[in-house]
Amino acid sequence: MPVIPHVFLPGPIRLATARNWLLVACAALLTACAGIAPRDPLPSWNDGPVKTAILKIVADTTQEGAPGFVPPAERIATFDNDGTLWNEHPMYVEVMYTLARIKEMAPQHPEWKTQQPFAAVVDGNRAALEKLTERDFFMLMAATRAGQRPEDIRQNVATWLAASKHPRFNRPYTDLIYQPMLEVLTYFRANGYKTYIVTGGTVDFVRSFAERVYGVPPEQVVGTTFEATYAFDNGVAAVRLQPRPAAINDGPGKPVGMHRNIGRLPIAAFGNSDGDIAMLETTTNSPESKPYPRLGAFVWHTDAVREYAYDKDTSVGRLDKGLTLAPQLGWQLIDMKRDWKVIFPYELR
Amino acid sequence: MPVIPHVFLPGPIRLATARNWLLVACAALLTACAGIAPRDPLPSWNDGPVKTAILKIVADTTQEGAPGFVPPAERIATFDNDGTLWNEHPMYVEVMYTLARIKEMAPQHPEWKTQQPFAAVVDGNRAALEKLTERDFFMLMAATRAGQRPEDIRQNVATWLAASKHPRFNRPYTDLIYQPMLEVLTYFRANGYKTYIVTGGTVDFVRSFAERVYGVPPEQVVGTTFEATYAFDNGVAAVRLQPRPAAINDGPGKPVGMHRNIGRLPIAAFGNSDGDIAMLETTTNSPESKPYPRLGAFVWHTDAVREYAYDKDTSVGRLDKGLTLAPQLGWQLIDMKRDWKVIFPYELR
Repeated sequence: MPVIPHVFLPGPIRLATARNWLLVACAALLTACAGIAPRDPLPSWNDGPVKTAILKIVADTTQEGAPGFVPPAERIATFDNDGTLWNEHPMYVEVMYTLARIKEMAPQHPEWKTQQPFAAVVDGNRAALEKLTERDFFMLMAATRAGQRPEDIRQNVATWLAASKHPRFNRPYTDLIYQPMLEVLTYFRANGYKTYIVTGGTVDFVRSFAERVYGVPPEQVVGTTFEATYAFDNGVAAVRLQPRPAAINDGPGKPVGMHRNIGRLPIAAFGNSDGDIAMLETTTNSPESKPYPRLGAFVWHTDAVREYAYDKDTSVGRLDKGLTLAPQLGWQLIDMKRDWKVIFPYELR
Repeated sequence: MPVIPHVFLPGPIRLATARNWLLVACAALLTACAGIAPRDPLPSWNDGPVKTAILKIVADTTQEGAPGFVPPAERIATFDNDGTLWNEHPMYVEVMYTLARIKEMAPQHPEWKTQQPFAAVVDGNRAALEKLTERDFFMLMAATRAGQRPEDIRQNVATWLAASKHPRFNRPYTDLIYQPMLEVLTYFRANGYKTYIVTGGTVDFVRSFAERVYGVPPEQVVGTTFEATYAFDNGVAAVRLQPRPAAINDGPGKPVGMHRNIGRLPIAAFGNSDGDIAMLETTTNSPESKPYPRLGAFVWHTDAVREYAYDKDTSVGRLDKGLTLAPQLGWQLIDMKRDWKVIFPYELR
């Protein structure tokens, strides 16, 4: 404790005045500091190698004159959706929607009562549902799309999303988006990046909420597509989807979808499953990856308490190959438990 | 002539001073007027119904509070390329490129000497070339793409474009873009619109020059695509095109391509051939076309002196159905001879 000469010791009134002055000085200092100190653009991220890498790629690519400077027109960042931007457990949300939609459509399709894979869904036969193959699932999805206009599907999905809740969290699925990834989306966009969703989900499903929930407009959603026909009948133009997939935007389909819909290499790509490996490889290891800096990052679901923990063969695909490749190719592993202060936006409310 | 009292008549010195003041006043007035008078955003367009319609759709959709106001995120304008943004006569430029590329590749393909449709191209057999069907042309195009990376095709096209000239105008093809349409592209963009090219040409061909020539970035080029495969070999990621078209982005394929790559209805769509009818119908006559104002416009090649005149069945597709539909559906017909003061940008230099 410093020794204060007694002549400076304040009397009661002088003390009050001094306190006031001190308060004023502190307030001024705080105001000045707030103006100087850069606001953390990723407040839901713990400090660590991943947060540092995200801050660094944006700084390196946006500082005019820096060796890694990327002109604004070439600033692209791509994001997988399921498991990267929102929760994918215990099932992909699009699977939940498709099963619900099949049940809703069943009264108009009495033949489904005996026809697999429809019967399993209509009966709610859990054992049969668990045996559904990827091909079965495409059949179900195709039946919900056949003859529909993309706009009608978007509307139907939006209505379902507004009425449905996650079985564990008891909240709408669109509440179960990852707050730290929302901050990454916003941070990239604030630095002149176009943010794209490159998803195995179908374009219409993801477009039904991507703009409202992620701020990603429909033209920046690259996804699985169905064959489609066009007709102009009675003065009305309509595209209608056909029950055959045109492009499956997963795994090796992601770089193909990026070629078709973007035509530029992303500077940064975020994924979480083996279905994202090709997208990350393309970003970091194409002949065109140089001369710009590139970032590949993998969300690793390590938090069974706040979300889920899984990293091998699961109901939502495999992760183990990606986890092995990440250190070899210099990709960041986003360890959910270690790196994320909060998981969902509602935790901040 | 007004009568001026002689006492006010200036002597020689006073006259000079007055002249100077007059010059200063005129300069000030001109400066002020330049600041007030709106600069014509479409100086290469003659006044008339089409220019008025283009100015009106932009004004109606961008004035905050106006009944037709469109939020910036929804401002999309789509443009066909061949015959709408640049010259397509006597042949599509991509046909010219493909024929040249086949000749260039021929030494590595001795089998082409006897195999049609390749032999016709290798021999330069004019009679056989004129008989090539659309299917033949796709075979030729596919052969130039097979196994190629999209980036390599773009580079190859760029090199060819830099070295090739139009047979009549003796100028690079990229000089033969339409100045009035460049002004339309710029005008829409200056008003918050995203401008898309929706072309029957292949994406890689059009992307090779669209950004430099039109200011349209690769992600805003929607075109014909080829099937593609992806591989990661020796640490290098590559998409390679396969010799089968995946989506033919012409006619009814245009609304399908717009669904896949844009997912929003354009506010304005510009075309010139029957291959653009479906795009314009979709723009103006979809259930979603209301409540916003929409514009459909058709370039009508009516100027045999400055460019070409054609409007029926031609080497570059049919136009007659569109010309009939235009008045029925309220689309603007851009009469090149009547509406365009200049055709090509080099006329202004």
